Amino acid sequence: MILRHFVGVGGGKTNFKWFASVCRLRRFQPCMSAMEYSTESLSGMFHFGPYLLKKSVEVFYVSKLSYGIVNLKPIVPGHVLVIPKRVVKRFQELSPEEVGDLWQSAQHIGVKLEQYYQAQAMTFCIQDGEAAGQTVPHVHVHVIPRRPGDFKRNDQVYEMLESNSVQKWEIDNEGRRNRTEEEMEEEAKRLRTLWM
Amino acid sequence: MILRHFVGVGGGKTNFKWFASVCRLRRFQPCMSAMEYSTESLSGMFHFGPYLLKKSVEVFYVSKLSYGIVNLKPIVPGHVLVIPKRVVKRFQELSPEEVGDLWQSAQHIGVKLEQYYQAQAMTFCIQDGEAAGQTVPHVHVHVIPRRPGDFKRNDQVYEMLESNSVQKWEIDNEGRRNRTEEEMEEEAKRLRTLWM
Repeated sequence: MILRHFVGVGGGKTNFKWFASVCRLRRFQPCMSAMEYSTESLSGMFHFGPYLLKKSVEVFYVSKLSYGIVNLKPIVPGHVLVIPKRVVKRFQELSPEEVGDLWQSAQHIGVKLEQYYQAQAMTFCIQDGEAAGQTVPHVHVHVIPRRPGDFKRNDQVYEMLESNSVQKWEIDNEGRRNRTEEEMEEEAKRLRTLWM
Repeated sequence: MILRHFVGVGGGKTNFKWFASVCRLRRFQPCMSAMEYSTESLSGMFHFGPYLLKKSVEVFYVSKLSYGIVNLKPIVPGHVLVIPKRVVKRFQELSPEEVGDLWQSAQHIGVKLEQYYQAQAMTFCIQDGEAAGQTVPHVHVHVIPRRPGDFKRNDQVYEMLESNSVQKWEIDNEGRRNRTEEEMEEEAKRLRTLWM
């Protein structure tokens, strides 16, 4: 179990005001009291950067070093995230074993989601660093089922990805709403069955 | 050395008219005569889908199962592709070892390019299938150095990526021109020194 300090993880943008606002937006319980967090707590909770996730609500896939979570505000049905268990901001910080595990997990999840959502293709993307659009300081692979014509322009998927960022949720003009915990839990429950 | 039939690799869009047009655009020698192609020929040439690449001109990085190539028309300086040696269309067709090698290569290349091009972040992306914008029927990771404000909108990088596709080169409105073989060779030569 790897312990890391929260303070400073997110660089200049990770101040407490921002942290408090995104925690409120995501409605997840932050672990502010200890000022440290583990990758997987004894209570069965997982981390996505500074957020504590509820395994039963959001996590649908767990490998040795990675896990897959459903999205608070997916841009299309089946848009999920694959995340290394160890909380690091940049892709370059992952060990070779973590890189292999992360992308083999993304591949496995992609195959299942493409079938389940009757898609014909997949988009896999890492926004690695703030200048690339990263908003949560924890490496995450966007895994997005695609169909012909699912966006007006094919590349509009990326605009939606950008507007999906935590910091833009309050000014989202796409008419999409945050999902309830019950909706996310129901999706995670369905997706877990794909590996049974 | 793995031999694969060319015919049918690209699905409906891969017909000979299209194949001939993209070969003319890329100015690479296709291996049409044999109707089969290998991943790495005895003459030291590598494949990108149906294209034969000249190792000395385009390839700057080679691992056990993958290689890195410079772009005919990069959207920003340092926009390169990382490709498995084995020619398969979809990410799901790669073995676990190939997945690990491909992404560890992308990671190594990303670290070097970010330093070399004085970038602050990286975009990593696979357009996995035609409905996701894939135009060359060979898995490829786009590795793109990023800086704050490098595009008017952060997500414009993906529009550029779309317009970078082989089939759109003739109607590219961005004012970007195909690079000469000499320009590409010079860049590949410079990038090779990053691993010396």
